Amino acid sequence: MEALQLVYAVSFFSVIIAFAFAVYLHLWVRRQPARNEKIIEVSELIHAGANTFMRREYLILARFAGVAAVLILILLPSPIWEGDVLPNISMTIAYLAGTALSALAGKIGILVATQANSRAAEGAQQGLKPAFLIGFRGGAVMGLAVVGSCLLGVMAVLMITADATVLLGFSFGASSLALFAKAGGGIFTKTADVAADLTGKVELGIPEDDPRNPAVIADNVGDNVGDVAGMGADLFDSNVAAMASALVMAQALDGGSGANTAMVFCYAAIGLLASIIGIACARVGKNGNPTQALNSSTYSTTMIFILLTAAATWFLDGFEWRIWGASAVGLVVGVIIGITTDYFTDDSKPIVQKVAHASQSGPAFTILSGISYGFISSLPAMVGIAVSALTAYKLCEPLGEGYALFGIAMAAVGMLSIVGMIISNDAYGPIVDNARGLAEMGGLGEETIWVADELDSAGNTVKAVTKGFAIGAAGLTVISLLGAYMSEVNVALAEAGKELLTGFDIMEPTVFFGILIGAGIPAVFSAMLMLGVDKNAQRMVAEIHRQFREIAGLREGREGVKADYDKCINIATEGALKELIPAGLMAIIATVLVGFIGGPEAIGGFLLGNIVSGLLLALFMSNAGGLWDNSKKYIEAGNEGGKGSEAHKAAVTGDTVGDPFKDTAGPSINTQITVVSLVSSLLSSLFAALSLFG
Amino acid sequence: MEALQLVYAVSFFSVIIAFAFAVYLHLWVRRQPARNEKIIEVSELIHAGANTFMRREYLILARFAGVAAVLILILLPSPIWEGDVLPNISMTIAYLAGTALSALAGKIGILVATQANSRAAEGAQQGLKPAFLIGFRGGAVMGLAVVGSCLLGVMAVLMITADATVLLGFSFGASSLALFAKAGGGIFTKTADVAADLTGKVELGIPEDDPRNPAVIADNVGDNVGDVAGMGADLFDSNVAAMASALVMAQALDGGSGANTAMVFCYAAIGLLASIIGIACARVGKNGNPTQALNSSTYSTTMIFILLTAAATWFLDGFEWRIWGASAVGLVVGVIIGITTDYFTDDSKPIVQKVAHASQSGPAFTILSGISYGFISSLPAMVGIAVSALTAYKLCEPLGEGYALFGIAMAAVGMLSIVGMIISNDAYGPIVDNARGLAEMGGLGEETIWVADELDSAGNTVKAVTKGFAIGAAGLTVISLLGAYMSEVNVALAEAGKELLTGFDIMEPTVFFGILIGAGIPAVFSAMLMLGVDKNAQRMVAEIHRQFREIAGLREGREGVKADYDKCINIATEGALKELIPAGLMAIIATVLVGFIGGPEAIGGFLLGNIVSGLLLALFMSNAGGLWDNSKKYIEAGNEGGKGSEAHKAAVTGDTVGDPFKDTAGPSINTQITVVSLVSSLLSSLFAALSLFG
Repeated sequence: MEALQLVYAVSFFSVIIAFAFAVYLHLWVRRQPARNEKIIEVSELIHAGANTFMRREYLILARFAGVAAVLILILLPSPIWEGDVLPNISMTIAYLAGTALSALAGKIGILVATQANSRAAEGAQQGLKPAFLIGFRGGAVMGLAVVGSCLLGVMAVLMITADATVLLGFSFGASSLALFAKAGGGIFTKTADVAADLTGKVELGIPEDDPRNPAVIADNVGDNVGDVAGMGADLFDSNVAAMASALVMAQALDGGSGANTAMVFCYAAIGLLASIIGIACARVGKNGNPTQALNSSTYSTTMIFILLTAAATWFLDGFEWRIWGASAVGLVVGVIIGITTDYFTDDSKPIVQKVAHASQSGPAFTILSGISYGFISSLPAMVGIAVSALTAYKLCEPLGEGYALFGIAMAAVGMLSIVGMIISNDAYGPIVDNARGLAEMGGLGEETIWVADELDSAGNTVKAVTKGFAIGAAGLTVISLLGAYMSEVNVALAEAGKELLTGFDIMEPTVFFGILIGAGIPAVFSAMLMLGVDKNAQRMVAEIHRQFREIAGLREGREGVKADYDKCINIATEGALKELIPAGLMAIIATVLVGFIGGPEAIGGFLLGNIVSGLLLALFMSNAGGLWDNSKKYIEAGNEGGKGSEAHKAAVTGDTVGDPFKDTAGPSINTQITVVSLVSSLLSSLFAALSLFG
Repeated sequence: MEALQLVYAVSFFSVIIAFAFAVYLHLWVRRQPARNEKIIEVSELIHAGANTFMRREYLILARFAGVAAVLILILLPSPIWEGDVLPNISMTIAYLAGTALSALAGKIGILVATQANSRAAEGAQQGLKPAFLIGFRGGAVMGLAVVGSCLLGVMAVLMITADATVLLGFSFGASSLALFAKAGGGIFTKTADVAADLTGKVELGIPEDDPRNPAVIADNVGDNVGDVAGMGADLFDSNVAAMASALVMAQALDGGSGANTAMVFCYAAIGLLASIIGIACARVGKNGNPTQALNSSTYSTTMIFILLTAAATWFLDGFEWRIWGASAVGLVVGVIIGITTDYFTDDSKPIVQKVAHASQSGPAFTILSGISYGFISSLPAMVGIAVSALTAYKLCEPLGEGYALFGIAMAAVGMLSIVGMIISNDAYGPIVDNARGLAEMGGLGEETIWVADELDSAGNTVKAVTKGFAIGAAGLTVISLLGAYMSEVNVALAEAGKELLTGFDIMEPTVFFGILIGAGIPAVFSAMLMLGVDKNAQRMVAEIHRQFREIAGLREGREGVKADYDKCINIATEGALKELIPAGLMAIIATVLVGFIGGPEAIGGFLLGNIVSGLLLALFMSNAGGLWDNSKKYIEAGNEGGKGSEAHKAAVTGDTVGDPFKDTAGPSINTQITVVSLVSSLLSSLFAALSLFG
């Protein structure tokens, strides 16, 4: 047990450093000058708007979580009428802790991001270097808060209960929040974006961030709630899920030694430390390329992780090299997935340029070529996940029974180890995006806007990479959740005195039944979210039209006349949450139905089908969205006819289709998959006891 | 063996009736008047163009088939150096027979369709009833030829070799042809359609079927080679595959009795007879609604099949009611899938109207809502396939080991039993579509064009239904192909003295590896086809521009000046075959790679992933394409602003995206899946012998 205690100490220490460093970075950001009154005013509006959304979101979540908590208390891990109530209480508390910690991290991230945006805008007056640093460090606070609280929470649950199964409750809590934050935030951000574009750019022909547009603040709020809070919650969720499933298996394998559990914590702690080092060292180099700065800090974090974990494996007893290999493979494949995503979405590479060129024949060809390349772009990542899972399995198989699946779980832990760095990169995007808008609204001049544009463009490219990474990591994680599900089911089956499952055979009709239905769910889920954006945007467009009609002087931009920004924020908020709930319920109800009809085996198939089609669609939609966005930017940079040309109009259509693809539906599929996986694990004992064909 | 001989006799008898009836219908069609010289001329151009394409296609196919035949001769069912050469010769001959019979059926279908189109155009002058009958009966010749030659071929192979495994060779032959006919024809038809629309409607503002447009004949040829020959080959392929896999299992279950084999043939023969009755009775009723006429003959065929098979099961020894139930469930679910497809694609139903309404906000919203409803529309069919497979399995499980999978195969046979009727309905579409064009080119007057329009619109609606049906049937068929693959692999494993497979466990990493990669293939395959259409259309647009530039008087429509239609047909032909081959090879090479890396288990997973994502994407693309097409028609009928409005422009964009979705990529996925399944079955002994991780 010595190694385990040492590792707990190291983990705790790295959490403390992470929090301390986050506080330092936050104070550093706040120390940066913010003087322009106009900018401060708008920035405060954005901050207030984001708070409005999050308060409402958390209120609805609280009700949902309350219902879920009562159900967990009664039913899980086993119905209270069947015996001990203590495990149920632990599970419930863990669930609530999962939602609360994730919510807290999101709240902190938003706070800092909305302070960093105005400072980055003013920093851009001084040049690329200081502005980059403000944007990046503002994002890093979110990254550190997420990973630190994740590690702290997992550690606390395990130290208090000594039962890794309780972590599934914690993980389910994180998933509940992620569903609201990512999918709700995704609907919010695209509602505002679409409505602002339709009324502003298309109808009135005013610039993107013109303050006359009542949706402009909502649009900027959307970037924060969608990309900062949403993406953070998504990766918090994946990270917790990866650790939870690895720890469930580790505990089963450990027997007395604790070496495997120690290894999971050790690697997670090293990942956090590596991210801290990477964040501390990130700078724009001499050539002044922010994309390169973001990428190279990711690569150096990766190298540091691989070296430090090798050192730990060398020094610590019971740490296996094969498992180290699995985690390294996971991380390397994650980075490769990121690079191939970049190939498909970077406007200096041929694919984006081809789509831009096709746009000359009209919007149908923008769409067709974008969908086609989006489909093709999903293959490398699918192959990458397949290869890393197979390699991790085969590497760890010789260690004994159960180790092969543990290897896959550790590949996921490895892939997610640098998640602190990934979130920092990702949260950088909306901060500098906001900064660009603020620079325009504050009238900081063309040169400053150019600097902000440069920073923003880097944010877009890196965002595609981190999204590919996040989806890949979620893919590997859910494979290990499948393993976690099977062990949960077997505990339930053993208690019920039924035959244990040894796997899920495709040729079993219940499994096949589950697979087909499971594969349909992500398609329907993402469709419901996209239709939700559409409906909600229509509501907001109506409100904008009303304001232009009823507020005298607004359209002309008369001095002192202000749009009612709050109304738009309220519409986006209410609509987002209203449209989200049916989609989430659909996924959960389908799971429950399949479970009660086909039993535990059908659920195994259901999860598989869900993972496979979910991965495919998530990769397709994220990448297609990214490539449309950048091919529009490529044309706006003066290619294929430039701004205002027919090709540009077609590219704008592509971008409008791509927006809900990449910011609402695509990345929300991740959370749909984890929610469904965890619901399955949590209800496994019920499915084992009662089902029609099981 | 008595029942088997009786059934052979009945099958042979029904094939004779089918052929005789086809000849009668063909002669009947030819007896209908064709007097308008202009129409005859154009119709002959279409006929010649279709022949050009098919000759080239068959030439390329012959080379491909030659290579495949040599490989089969050397390697299959087992390498010739390992023993008997006779089975390899049978397999090779069966393969060649499969390609030849399917090719012949396609040739006949095209011949009749290109004779029926001009007669239907002139028939439209007399009214709806006679024109409908010409269109429908012209299509029925194709339906009868396909199903008759399919049944005859399967019977001949089995009677000569007495070995159902040889049927896999026959089935592979049918699949090879289907790949060329469906995917190649699909690229051809959309190349011509897109190029004709872009240059004609968009650039010049001339009507759809204006003879000045050099692509107009190619466009009409495309309808025939894509929908008549292509769809026929696709359903020939599915039908053969369903029968082959059912017969492989039946033979293994039969022992001495032959009852199961008899049952397969008996049901197939009854399906053919039911289709003949349905075709003979099809008429437009008093209310004169052609859609209803097509649908009601489908329903009556379904009823006749269910009743006749019940009678056969009652009277014949060894016919099991449970298996009858499985086939009935398959057929009923097929019809239900057709009806739900109709719900999503019929312009009198809400979905199409919602998409039309969304088009008012611009093309991005046409696309977004169409994609969303397309995604949602895939779920009912997925659930239907899942439910029918589960029900068939559970129904037949009590009959003994192996019967459960046989039940699924019989559900597929049941679903495909009325395929004669389905093909007739489907081939009706392009005939009346052509007729509409001919009526316009021949100047037959507005009333005739209105009649032709009515017939055409019915063809569009029914096409969506038959496509849903075809995809559903293919889905069930490939499940049984998965079973066929497993028995093939086990024969090979037994010979190699290795452990037999009892199934494919998702938790096995090689299986999982295969699943992920298999799921990516249909996306890449369809993307390659769509990009191929795009590239090819650009070549044709360049040629059209050249003709307008170089042929004096063409643009103005000067008397006696003719476009060089052949050039466009040649471009479409060459391009289609050139773009198709990489996509087909990609799928086959991926199969071979996965097989040699992961072994037979990985291939099991690969097939599953391929089926699941293939079904999802095929349903999504076919339905989305159908709904865009019909929402454009709905707007053109005067809704949401009518023709020429912004909504109409947006709907045209949707339709242009939807065309390659529904006519190229979506339905070609079926053949990609069967090709991959059969390659896997054929190479199973190689994968069992040599693989990296297997």
